[in-house]
Amino acid sequence: MNPKAGDAVALFHVVESDMERVDALITQVVRDENPLVERVAQYLREASGKRIRPALVLLSARAVGRTAPHVVPIAGAVELIHMATLVHDDIIDRADLRRGRPALRRAFNDQVAVLAGDFLFARAFQLLAETGLPPVVRTAADVVHTMSVGEIQQNLERGTLTTEAAYLSRIEAKTATFLAASCRLGALAVGADALTLEALSTYGWHVGMAFQLIDDLLDVTADSATLGEAVAADFQQGVVTLPVLYALAHSARGDELRRALLAAPEEGRLAEVREVLEASGAIQYVQEKAHHLVRLGLDALAPLPPSEAREALSALAHFVVAREY
Amino acid sequence: MNPKAGDAVALFHVVESDMERVDALITQVVRDENPLVERVAQYLREASGKRIRPALVLLSARAVGRTAPHVVPIAGAVELIHMATLVHDDIIDRADLRRGRPALRRAFNDQVAVLAGDFLFARAFQLLAETGLPPVVRTAADVVHTMSVGEIQQNLERGTLTTEAAYLSRIEAKTATFLAASCRLGALAVGADALTLEALSTYGWHVGMAFQLIDDLLDVTADSATLGEAVAADFQQGVVTLPVLYALAHSARGDELRRALLAAPEEGRLAEVREVLEASGAIQYVQEKAHHLVRLGLDALAPLPPSEAREALSALAHFVVAREY
Repeated sequence: MNPKAGDAVALFHVVESDMERVDALITQVVRDENPLVERVAQYLREASGKRIRPALVLLSARAVGRTAPHVVPIAGAVELIHMATLVHDDIIDRADLRRGRPALRRAFNDQVAVLAGDFLFARAFQLLAETGLPPVVRTAADVVHTMSVGEIQQNLERGTLTTEAAYLSRIEAKTATFLAASCRLGALAVGADALTLEALSTYGWHVGMAFQLIDDLLDVTADSATLGEAVAADFQQGVVTLPVLYALAHSARGDELRRALLAAPEEGRLAEVREVLEASGAIQYVQEKAHHLVRLGLDALAPLPPSEAREALSALAHFVVAREY
Repeated sequence: MNPKAGDAVALFHVVESDMERVDALITQVVRDENPLVERVAQYLREASGKRIRPALVLLSARAVGRTAPHVVPIAGAVELIHMATLVHDDIIDRADLRRGRPALRRAFNDQVAVLAGDFLFARAFQLLAETGLPPVVRTAADVVHTMSVGEIQQNLERGTLTTEAAYLSRIEAKTATFLAASCRLGALAVGADALTLEALSTYGWHVGMAFQLIDDLLDVTADSATLGEAVAADFQQGVVTLPVLYALAHSARGDELRRALLAAPEEGRLAEVREVLEASGAIQYVQEKAHHLVRLGLDALAPLPPSEAREALSALAHFVVAREY
């Protein structure tokens, strides 16, 4: 377990035993009798993350106030789908590292990474089919559909993203849809009514938008030593996030920022990037936007009866904007 | 439509109107409102093949003697899953062409191809979820699971395949499982009993094995001008099929064949490859094996009531071993 994920995991103590069952289930299905395939499966089992999506499934089910045997398999399937998208994303981003280890495409090769993602999708839909709940399968397939379309769009429009609206659509497809669906799936598993399904889904959507806004912001602010460098590299690859978009549009020094971002690293204009970003108010703008989204997410929880699980969902929403990693 | 596929398609006249509905459904779901994504969707819609898997779904349902509204969506989903595996296979094989056109990875890039495959999987499972039949979802997910494991194994063991048993396992995972599942899915869609499910699935498995045997044999024999060249290229990439395995094991000139296969093209030893393959009896051996499998597949159809659909399934089995492309 990534030690940095400790704080996030502490929020999930209400569902701790179920989370252990989710982990055990993943360990059980990501496995193969063929020793070569098992090497890939072992790699996948050891790639542990924050497990936010399965936690949302478990907490949402619990917040409805009921339990059902299918909650844990659905939570497992959601994490498997997330793992599949990460493995495929690393091919797309030509990433060398994932969570501090060589990415699967580096540990093996791009070909195996394509297939390992397909393997994880298949395992997920096997678990979902076993629930006997078609709306659960449909919701999960919708997530994969939305994410793949969003990523195709992002890949083909590299470098042409210029508006905040386009950025928001992108992070919706990338993250908010999935977090909303995780909450909806937990509620579906326990047979929640339409109002409750919508409440939890709305909560998940807003927390997902805030989560991705902060994720992109942390790329800019997390380590001031490399700030500028990472942003400039992203920008030169056509990946633009909200802090940069905001500064380009709202700072009087927008043109200067653009030239500094496009400059070769050896020209040493990274301090300038940092300075313009900070002076433009972009960082504060993104933080306020994330806080606003989290407030809307918390409001959506109001119709749910008070419970430890609802408290944990609230705490998770606060954590999303307060975290520093 | 590939004109070469004409003969195969003629076998499907019993289900011709349903096949048109399958095509219309695929056209409807492989589409996107975003113009960039729609370019990819258009490419996918135009990549038409022989449609054997959806035909097996439709014919199997018809052979049971009932109809159900879900047969066409299931047939569509099966073709979408097949398309997804082809798109991903082309990344894995670094293929430049697919059905005479630039492969998707060439028309766009490897990244888009990864995502387009995921998009097709998602579309397939959306259609399957809408049937409301969890065993249908499960069967389709099992196919993706089996195929991905088989391909991971093939990728990691490149060059070490040395036995006929290993070759048969490979083509089972690659083709027979999917054709068996296509038949089973058609029968599941119309609520067939266990005996009928097993009969159709057994038919599909044997026809699938024969289909892949002949497919691999045609790579060796289809065009005598390039025979030897393609086989040697495959062999040097670690891809070995049954004709070569047989000749290596059973011809007194096995060592000579191995050296000729490993020789650089400019050494001009391809005529030697061709000659040893033909003299070894490998081609006849594979043909007889395929015919034997087809007979077992036809036997499996015996419990089904006589019908036009059963006749078409028989004709398809005969076509699989008689075809020359």
